[in-house]
Amino acid sequence: MALLFRSSPESAARWQPHFARLMPELEVRVWPEVGDCAAIDYALVWQPEPGLLASLPNLKLIMNLGAGVDHLLADPTTPRHVPIVRLVDPYMTEAMSEYVALQVLRLHRRDLDYAAQQRDRVWWELDQKNAAERRVGILGFGVLGQDAGRKLQALGFDLAGWSRGAKAVPGVATYAGAAELPAFLGRSEILVCLLPLTRETEGILDRRLFSQLPRGAALVNAARGGHLVDADLLAALGTGQLSAAVLDAFRDEPLPPDHPFWSHPRIVVTPHIAALTNPPTAAPILLDNIRRLREGRPLENQVDPARGY
Amino acid sequence: MALLFRSSPESAARWQPHFARLMPELEVRVWPEVGDCAAIDYALVWQPEPGLLASLPNLKLIMNLGAGVDHLLADPTTPRHVPIVRLVDPYMTEAMSEYVALQVLRLHRRDLDYAAQQRDRVWWELDQKNAAERRVGILGFGVLGQDAGRKLQALGFDLAGWSRGAKAVPGVATYAGAAELPAFLGRSEILVCLLPLTRETEGILDRRLFSQLPRGAALVNAARGGHLVDADLLAALGTGQLSAAVLDAFRDEPLPPDHPFWSHPRIVVTPHIAALTNPPTAAPILLDNIRRLREGRPLENQVDPARGY
Repeated sequence: MALLFRSSPESAARWQPHFARLMPELEVRVWPEVGDCAAIDYALVWQPEPGLLASLPNLKLIMNLGAGVDHLLADPTTPRHVPIVRLVDPYMTEAMSEYVALQVLRLHRRDLDYAAQQRDRVWWELDQKNAAERRVGILGFGVLGQDAGRKLQALGFDLAGWSRGAKAVPGVATYAGAAELPAFLGRSEILVCLLPLTRETEGILDRRLFSQLPRGAALVNAARGGHLVDADLLAALGTGQLSAAVLDAFRDEPLPPDHPFWSHPRIVVTPHIAALTNPPTAAPILLDNIRRLREGRPLENQVDPARGY
Repeated sequence: MALLFRSSPESAARWQPHFARLMPELEVRVWPEVGDCAAIDYALVWQPEPGLLASLPNLKLIMNLGAGVDHLLADPTTPRHVPIVRLVDPYMTEAMSEYVALQVLRLHRRDLDYAAQQRDRVWWELDQKNAAERRVGILGFGVLGQDAGRKLQALGFDLAGWSRGAKAVPGVATYAGAAELPAFLGRSEILVCLLPLTRETEGILDRRLFSQLPRGAALVNAARGGHLVDADLLAALGTGQLSAAVLDAFRDEPLPPDHPFWSHPRIVVTPHIAALTNPPTAAPILLDNIRRLREGRPLENQVDPARGY
């Protein structure tokens, strides 16, 4: 019973002790030391090169080292007959919610303005309202969105959530589908994107969407760079339609040194750190799915390739 | 029935419509237009000049435009026979909790490091733990401290509170008095000061206190500048005993342009904006105390001058 691990070599060293402890019978092979391809039953991957998974003839399960499987589904060589599961780890969910809470509070409390005042040694009190008067919208209201929503509600924000299919969440205004998107956007002074990246959501954060937000709205994108049309964000910041943006994901990562986001005074750039994988908590979750497969039980968090997440 | 208002003239314009609507029979005089001193029953003040309150022979109630009455009690001319009430407005309490949540999350999530990386266009992932693994201590666990604590707990932080007298708060590790201060400090990776400023707490944030925190701890001071020994903070940041500080209050306000805090790479300066007074919610609270006094009922939030808050 063998698992192929394909992420960075440093990363492998962080995972292996947990696999060895929890499932000693599992042989873990770290790419590029693949060995006999036919002996590999499971693959644990982050952005594997096209063709790698297709080269494993007896592969039974593809496990993605993160919540978003857009890279796997965008690769035409990914075997379609092998189930794909995404990593849903409460530890990472909590980390994402912390990131969202920090960035929403930052935008709500005018932190970019105060940081500029500090640079200029300006002592000046800006108008401020309370969280209860600040309407925040979470675009993508699944596991991550709902957890972040609970934390924003505990902080007092006036929260709404949008998802593709209707979801009833106690105490939250929920909107669903394309028909209700304009009403959701029209109330979102701070918009948080936590969508999966699919054919339908690619480039969704564009000029048309920004124009439906209240003037001066702010954006947090903690999902994927592919959701955002970079030039449209810069244009919306230029006209004042948007007042600020916090971005954790980019079309090219690492973000190229000459990209205008780095030095824009109204953009906060973080290097895809909103929710880092955490081997001590994630390894048992991954191995549970291997056990489920072996015992013929239903997998957890299996991806629907047609839906894209 | 007359009230003397002593704060900034711009501030008066924000309060008067609320007084006029809620208690039209109240004559509001805005300093320096004091008129007949003997006709003034109530004073609503923020840092009045020494002697002003003593010049009002029939004064029955001093209302402070904020939670901290340290300025009033430090002034030997403040009449000792007139009750002082401080302003406790849930709206301001919520604003303070938002500020504390933002700054604790900022320190927890290494935001100063990531901001420096953005300036240098560096894409680098830093080690991160979750809020549940981060021990936060709130120094001063009264109305403000407990509300901030509830929000930090909702975000998942491992919280403790310290107060002068023992307080039992469900789900929170509480410490009390000088005897338990070292144990409280020893666990506080992020220390939040929300103490009242009294003879006992003046200069409490000093070298000795910093040395009892875990190495690399961070400080949020949202209380008073008088709590902090500025030179000791700079020294502790210099040795690495402290890793960062967020300061909203200063010994001299506005913070002088040549003060080293402005440009320190590990200090965030905000211009005393953690919890701004909000006339629409505060005016009814203030006027309720006037009614209580007139009707001989107990005052709300009366200050004990011996205790200092």
